[in-house]
Amino acid sequence: MDFLSAITDKKLGKPLNTQQIEYFAKAAAEGLAPDYQLAAMLMAIRLNGMNARETADLTMAMAHSGDMLEPDVGGVPVDKHSTGGVGDTTTLVLAPLVASCGGKVLKMSGRGLGHTGGTVDKLESIPGMRTSLPKEEFVDIVRRVGCAVVGQSAELAPADKRLYALRDVTSTVDSIPLIAASILSKKFAAGAKALVLDVKYGSGAIMDTMEKSLALAKTMVDIGTQAGRHVIAVLTGMDEPLGTHVGNALEVKEAIDILSGRAGGDLKQVSLFLGAQMLCASGVSHNMEEAEKMLRKNLESGAGLSKLAEMIAAQGGDPRVTEDLSLLPQAPVRRVVTAERAGIVSGMDTMRLGYIAQGLGAGRRTKEDVIDPAVGFIMHARLGDTVSAGDPLAEIHARKEDDYEQAAAAIRDTVRITDSAPCAHPLIYAAVTREGTRMMH
Amino acid sequence: MDFLSAITDKKLGKPLNTQQIEYFAKAAAEGLAPDYQLAAMLMAIRLNGMNARETADLTMAMAHSGDMLEPDVGGVPVDKHSTGGVGDTTTLVLAPLVASCGGKVLKMSGRGLGHTGGTVDKLESIPGMRTSLPKEEFVDIVRRVGCAVVGQSAELAPADKRLYALRDVTSTVDSIPLIAASILSKKFAAGAKALVLDVKYGSGAIMDTMEKSLALAKTMVDIGTQAGRHVIAVLTGMDEPLGTHVGNALEVKEAIDILSGRAGGDLKQVSLFLGAQMLCASGVSHNMEEAEKMLRKNLESGAGLSKLAEMIAAQGGDPRVTEDLSLLPQAPVRRVVTAERAGIVSGMDTMRLGYIAQGLGAGRRTKEDVIDPAVGFIMHARLGDTVSAGDPLAEIHARKEDDYEQAAAAIRDTVRITDSAPCAHPLIYAAVTREGTRMMH
Repeated sequence: MDFLSAITDKKLGKPLNTQQIEYFAKAAAEGLAPDYQLAAMLMAIRLNGMNARETADLTMAMAHSGDMLEPDVGGVPVDKHSTGGVGDTTTLVLAPLVASCGGKVLKMSGRGLGHTGGTVDKLESIPGMRTSLPKEEFVDIVRRVGCAVVGQSAELAPADKRLYALRDVTSTVDSIPLIAASILSKKFAAGAKALVLDVKYGSGAIMDTMEKSLALAKTMVDIGTQAGRHVIAVLTGMDEPLGTHVGNALEVKEAIDILSGRAGGDLKQVSLFLGAQMLCASGVSHNMEEAEKMLRKNLESGAGLSKLAEMIAAQGGDPRVTEDLSLLPQAPVRRVVTAERAGIVSGMDTMRLGYIAQGLGAGRRTKEDVIDPAVGFIMHARLGDTVSAGDPLAEIHARKEDDYEQAAAAIRDTVRITDSAPCAHPLIYAAVTREGTRMMH
Repeated sequence: MDFLSAITDKKLGKPLNTQQIEYFAKAAAEGLAPDYQLAAMLMAIRLNGMNARETADLTMAMAHSGDMLEPDVGGVPVDKHSTGGVGDTTTLVLAPLVASCGGKVLKMSGRGLGHTGGTVDKLESIPGMRTSLPKEEFVDIVRRVGCAVVGQSAELAPADKRLYALRDVTSTVDSIPLIAASILSKKFAAGAKALVLDVKYGSGAIMDTMEKSLALAKTMVDIGTQAGRHVIAVLTGMDEPLGTHVGNALEVKEAIDILSGRAGGDLKQVSLFLGAQMLCASGVSHNMEEAEKMLRKNLESGAGLSKLAEMIAAQGGDPRVTEDLSLLPQAPVRRVVTAERAGIVSGMDTMRLGYIAQGLGAGRRTKEDVIDPAVGFIMHARLGDTVSAGDPLAEIHARKEDDYEQAAAAIRDTVRITDSAPCAHPLIYAAVTREGTRMMH
């Protein structure tokens, strides 16, 4: 196989054939080609693109570059993936809720990096919780309990591991075919047969236009169809943190609040919508209305909260946190930051809010950083709220006063208060399925 | 300096600023950036291009990545460069001829690779000839004799050395800004103040369209203007070997034949045209007619041949070869290949002819190959010639019968004989100077 001629083809804008793409994935996984050739190919793909067939080929070739799991979980294994947001704790709400309705949620999650949090980090703020489990144990918990959430295995899709590291240092992250193949290859290798993708759109999202977000959603749904998996993609807003809580233990607390019926809002609404899609994608339910009704019933009955406790116990954690939030780590400094003027909350830089949480110690600047599970903040101000001077904008949970001061100044700076109301953005923009795209607003 | 942000800018199609380009060259020369980042940048440049200012900045940054020579040769140092052809021995004709008219020819030449020959390899077929000289000795020969031809120094433009090696293995050779910067950075670093570029066009040339050839020519002339050097570019045909002789000692023989007045043809015509441009570019003459007249006079008087003998002697070679061609290496097998049918010679794949010479041992497949100076062939058939069946197409000089058989079959295959005459292609297409482009046909 002449890899140089494949680079030449892509450079000239020609589609690569399946053999060329399989070699590319194999070369990345097994070191058959040097980094500089992979880098040249990545930049050629970033600039000249890939068609639907090429992108599907790349996804499957990357999935097959390592083990392909076929877990027997007693049902259709369903997973969910978010392109990354701030205060986005849907997994902790919907995984137990979907499981309580009979879904088999096989959830592989990442760790937080940059401005977005990671579900694995959030779970680890629960005393005793294990997120790295042997494959057999993980599958067994999904079979018995209905859900388990663990960290991504390095053995799955090794081609993605090398390519992702290279993309990061060659400015080739922002390529729709490469993003789609990277996300789906790992999910398919882990055995997900049904998959719901939450593509974020807005000031806290990686995709910066509606066109690109929709293109990514459609690309991933198409790949799923070609690969014989049921993939549904949903476009949701990220113009402010999804939940009010940002930070690891704080987000666990908000999930428990929702499952206990004490809290509602956008996080609950998106969790129910994604959860219903998961029930439909995995065939537990056959229409969205019925699926949402099942989820709401189990939320109100407390079945979802019990399922979360069951999952925590199965993964070695202390299930009493679901009843006693004081078992979660607490930050020593808790102070509110207040509005300096009266007006309407008309905008905020959500990505910056993510970095403010990182600055408090809730996120990592480099992979080696150690996070503090207790720190973060609870937003009081939501878009469109009317505030008076002195009203709380957020409650900051910090390690020390200095950290509070810095975060407070930054939050005041990024939350815009104006005299006129902002344009209302929808929370759920669109659902993309095998049948087509349905705009929701 | 954040090199990743420079890659991002070029990926997004933005022009790089001078500091970014200087860092790129420095990073290549001094290993400040890993190969995969250089490769990503090269592919982004190949696909998104560079404007005139960027290309000039890159050329100067690469030139300044190593020593910048300022040789005192008692006049304006003039060099000549060809983008590479087959049977292209102009240097061996024009260097002594221009020197005999008062020019100071400071010629750095490459070795042959692929289908093109290299002047250094040709010169080394002369017994005793040295092509690797200390800088002082090289400059001293140019000052005393008027011309010297040596191999390219690895110390000059080290950024080009690394980038060229990477381009070769990342499919980024065919980029006009990268080609122009590669050629000119080495020439400027070597001290050339005047430079004539011979851009080849046709079946034996690297540039495959007239537009690309002209774009490369104009780019290089513009860079020269910005860099305060006098650069002239000429577009010449490469639809058949320029001279009739292809092979190292054979090409030396043809150059001597021309300087002795025994041979003429296309090689002589192009040599006189390029030589006249060199006299004009270096200010020895002020118009092309006068310059060509000077060259023709010294060719007829034998002054050019004497100058070649003088240069050979100064570089340690045996100057008697200019009088006695039998001192050059001779191949044991010399046999003609004949036409199988009557007709008109209407075309040939010149690049393939270059590879046929390589196959006989005249060229290298890899840098490590050792060449045989004696082998090659003399073309009898020229485009437009009328031939009868049995007429000689070429005389092959080979190491053994088998080699002859293979080359003969290949030459027969590539020389097209048809009933109708081919379109006549001009030999000299255009001259591009600071004043503009003059089409010559």
